[in-house]
Amino acid sequence: MVPSLRLPSLTSLLFPVDSSRSPAALRRSLYLRRPLAAGFSAQSAATTPSTSASPETKPEVERLRSDKSVTPRSQDFNAWYLDVIASAELADYGPVRGTMVIRPYGYAMWEAIQEYLNAKFKETGHDNMYFPQFIPYSFIEKEASHVEGFSPELALVTIGGGKELEEKLVVRPTSETIVNHMFTQWIHSYRDLPLMINQWVNVTRWEMRTKPFVRTLEFLWQEGHTAHATPEEAEKEAQQMIEIYTKFAYEQAAIPVIAGRKSKLETFAGADKTYTIEAMMGDRKALQAGTRHNLGQNFSRAFGTQFADENGERQHVWQTSWAISTRFVGGIIMTHGDDTGLMLPPKLAPIQVIIVPIWKKADEKIAVLNAASSVKEVLRTAGVKVKLDDGEQHTPGWKFNFWEMKGVPIRIEIGPRDVSSNCVVVSRRDVPGKAGKVFGISMEPSTLVAYVKEKLDEIQSSLLEKAVSFRDSNIVDVNSYDELKAAISEGKWARGPWSASDADEARVKEETGATIRCFPFEQTPGTKSCLMTGNSAEEVAIFAKSY
Amino acid sequence: MVPSLRLPSLTSLLFPVDSSRSPAALRRSLYLRRPLAAGFSAQSAATTPSTSASPETKPEVERLRSDKSVTPRSQDFNAWYLDVIASAELADYGPVRGTMVIRPYGYAMWEAIQEYLNAKFKETGHDNMYFPQFIPYSFIEKEASHVEGFSPELALVTIGGGKELEEKLVVRPTSETIVNHMFTQWIHSYRDLPLMINQWVNVTRWEMRTKPFVRTLEFLWQEGHTAHATPEEAEKEAQQMIEIYTKFAYEQAAIPVIAGRKSKLETFAGADKTYTIEAMMGDRKALQAGTRHNLGQNFSRAFGTQFADENGERQHVWQTSWAISTRFVGGIIMTHGDDTGLMLPPKLAPIQVIIVPIWKKADEKIAVLNAASSVKEVLRTAGVKVKLDDGEQHTPGWKFNFWEMKGVPIRIEIGPRDVSSNCVVVSRRDVPGKAGKVFGISMEPSTLVAYVKEKLDEIQSSLLEKAVSFRDSNIVDVNSYDELKAAISEGKWARGPWSASDADEARVKEETGATIRCFPFEQTPGTKSCLMTGNSAEEVAIFAKSY
Repeated sequence: MVPSLRLPSLTSLLFPVDSSRSPAALRRSLYLRRPLAAGFSAQSAATTPSTSASPETKPEVERLRSDKSVTPRSQDFNAWYLDVIASAELADYGPVRGTMVIRPYGYAMWEAIQEYLNAKFKETGHDNMYFPQFIPYSFIEKEASHVEGFSPELALVTIGGGKELEEKLVVRPTSETIVNHMFTQWIHSYRDLPLMINQWVNVTRWEMRTKPFVRTLEFLWQEGHTAHATPEEAEKEAQQMIEIYTKFAYEQAAIPVIAGRKSKLETFAGADKTYTIEAMMGDRKALQAGTRHNLGQNFSRAFGTQFADENGERQHVWQTSWAISTRFVGGIIMTHGDDTGLMLPPKLAPIQVIIVPIWKKADEKIAVLNAASSVKEVLRTAGVKVKLDDGEQHTPGWKFNFWEMKGVPIRIEIGPRDVSSNCVVVSRRDVPGKAGKVFGISMEPSTLVAYVKEKLDEIQSSLLEKAVSFRDSNIVDVNSYDELKAAISEGKWARGPWSASDADEARVKEETGATIRCFPFEQTPGTKSCLMTGNSAEEVAIFAKSY
Repeated sequence: MVPSLRLPSLTSLLFPVDSSRSPAALRRSLYLRRPLAAGFSAQSAATTPSTSASPETKPEVERLRSDKSVTPRSQDFNAWYLDVIASAELADYGPVRGTMVIRPYGYAMWEAIQEYLNAKFKETGHDNMYFPQFIPYSFIEKEASHVEGFSPELALVTIGGGKELEEKLVVRPTSETIVNHMFTQWIHSYRDLPLMINQWVNVTRWEMRTKPFVRTLEFLWQEGHTAHATPEEAEKEAQQMIEIYTKFAYEQAAIPVIAGRKSKLETFAGADKTYTIEAMMGDRKALQAGTRHNLGQNFSRAFGTQFADENGERQHVWQTSWAISTRFVGGIIMTHGDDTGLMLPPKLAPIQVIIVPIWKKADEKIAVLNAASSVKEVLRTAGVKVKLDDGEQHTPGWKFNFWEMKGVPIRIEIGPRDVSSNCVVVSRRDVPGKAGKVFGISMEPSTLVAYVKEKLDEIQSSLLEKAVSFRDSNIVDVNSYDELKAAISEGKWARGPWSASDADEARVKEETGATIRCFPFEQTPGTKSCLMTGNSAEEVAIFAKSY
């Protein structure tokens, strides 16, 4: 292990030797960045181009690296977000305004989310199924607040098979209505309850202000729907699912969400209660990352979803619905990313370990590649998601930057000296520079596997710790409206006792731009007085600006 | 083991003791069957109600069992098919004509298909991703034969967010157009090729004559899309994928498909060549169960999907696309089912083993249920998909019939005598009555697991063998048009040399109702003369009526 001897040669590798690909890659980078900034939404178009430095004006070193670099996050959060999505090839714009193509690397993140949640849903007794996406327009009108909430956002099919349709069809924005229509046919007696199902599907909402992953015209999600014999059982189910979401956010995504209840104003159109998990993004805006609704009997009354109870009496069922969407991918990007690009929690990373082989002379190549392949095989067999970047178009330095930008948690470097000493160099994505780099890790399979797995766990924990400390240092406890306004104007979250009216809540939104994100489940005991009215308040609420 | 003593008691169990559920279940059965027969399509409505016996007219024993029985397949294939789908709770009608709700048991079959194919696609280098489902109408018009093929079947969104749209949006019937639109942005040089992707999505085709699973307005499928630098590579890819489909059909679904090339008339709108796997259903109609298209440069020329080759010259890419859909679930039902109901190949069965505990006296119950639970746990741990039906609403006899109708490959019965002797009774779904029933299989875990796994393999092989022999006994080699007509009028497939014109092919269809299903890849060598013209023919074609 002679680190001081290695470093100079690595530094020289930062400049690509083979530049044949650069112009195309640069062109692609420009191509991708421009439409992302300009085309996706009015919001993006308004904020990005003015702040995002044009590659042509960057200094030479940056230009050489510009096909893999992004606007620093510290400089412009929104431009950074769009750059990361383009450069890491997570998504691209679809041809229709506000639609998004989810590219393989971004889709793999969604698959990792699906894999975990799908297993949890099944363990807790929910079956997957599929409801048609076309819903008769009349269904949407049956539940009064539902139609009010959704009708401005609907996409309507009016022509089918060359003919004008008698009744317009809604492309599902969510499926409560069609689910209830079917539930009436499947639910007859208490023995048919609880009925607990889920579907993984696309949904469409005609949003005006869109942003990749966060808010798109069409997105992917899971929607769970359950029917129960009693309100207590429905409430218990709603609580259980929000716990599953919370655990998922903490343990898999390393996102320390705050779980709680939505205010009446922010409750889902058609629900009695909405529970939410709220996440703080890197710019301290809140992201609603998952919701669970207690629908009461609103839909069952509208659709006549009834069952015969044990005494033979007809009762309306009590229902819940709950969803997590591809928006969560946006949450992962905005929680953990840094100036360099993406930083992925190991448990959801499509690639957990990237292996970069390094050689200069032709006679070193075979030994290095053989060692790299065998390391790859060792890790793959041990269940680690590993990739070997043995391409010869780019220098190792280029690859380092590229895979850092892609947020791969661990990089393993193998050069000729490593082969001789039967060792590798391991770098952590979350600890920049020398501090995150360890030399001389043995290639011996059991040692290497144990080391890599331990590091992956450490990175997972470390990302969560960092996010928790960022979150907690940006929530201010407030006891007056002035304190609330001060906190919000500093870009922070404000937490304070609240028992004021809907009108007061609307006033806060109008005057500060912040909304009640939730009444957190975790409340400190004791009497409180409402920050707005001074009246007694049972709970604190969290206010924040949000996506 | 005293089988003769067991049987009488089992027979008496065929009549439900607890009849409290029967009226509701009967009502449900009626409710479900009627709309299935009458509402799903003009085709179904025309053929079913007249032949399907009304439960009210059935003899008493049948009436008592009617909530789990189906019209015998031998009596009316179409009514049987719809009954099986309703009674086994595979699917139900959506509220919009021609749409289908896929219920948990049917969806689990689709998940089993997905699980296998998804792994194969990834192994062969294809990445999953997601393209938006809304496609600008102008895209569809770009490829001339594509628009001709698809425009009569389109569903169009004309209103979004409460406003008339400037350009109508097509709800994807397939994604070649939008895929090419995006490929032009991702493909620049030969280094970007091959580009091989897949998506699991819903698609919409405004079909007039629909049938659950086989042809619905909206269905689920995977669609693979690839772009290559040379026609040879594209052709190789197309062949590889049809091999994966064939292997899947044989080994997982036990469906002995015939793989081959479509005739020009039957080729996909926009393809140079279409490869297909054709399956013979139980009524001897053909089902196109999967397709793979060699698109040549048709779409790349229409969309300008070009790359710079190694000499820097701009070339259009060569493309393929390939798909398997939820139609395959219909294929499984119609290949293996019998008079009693569904019969599922173990490798795709959502439940491979059903355990039915049997007791009469209260003091037997605990011991029997304990034994049943422990058998379940042993099998589950060994990776067998097992369910214990310990409900007390139904008799063991009712359960036997119910799970047979649901097509579960193996039933394990455990009664008090079995507990004493530490044994179970194992019945095969595919071998009716006593012949399929084996007494005295030890509960000892390793013995039981080995026995069950061996039986599952045997059932899987046996289903395939039966299907192969059924297929082969229903294909007739023909050498003249008269012979062809005779074979088709007997309901069989006709295989004969063919080099005649498109007009002749159209004439066969008009006069016999049969189409060329494919020119099989497996051809016998030697000179042949066309069955229609007598001219020399290089290949034999297979003609059949089809779904």
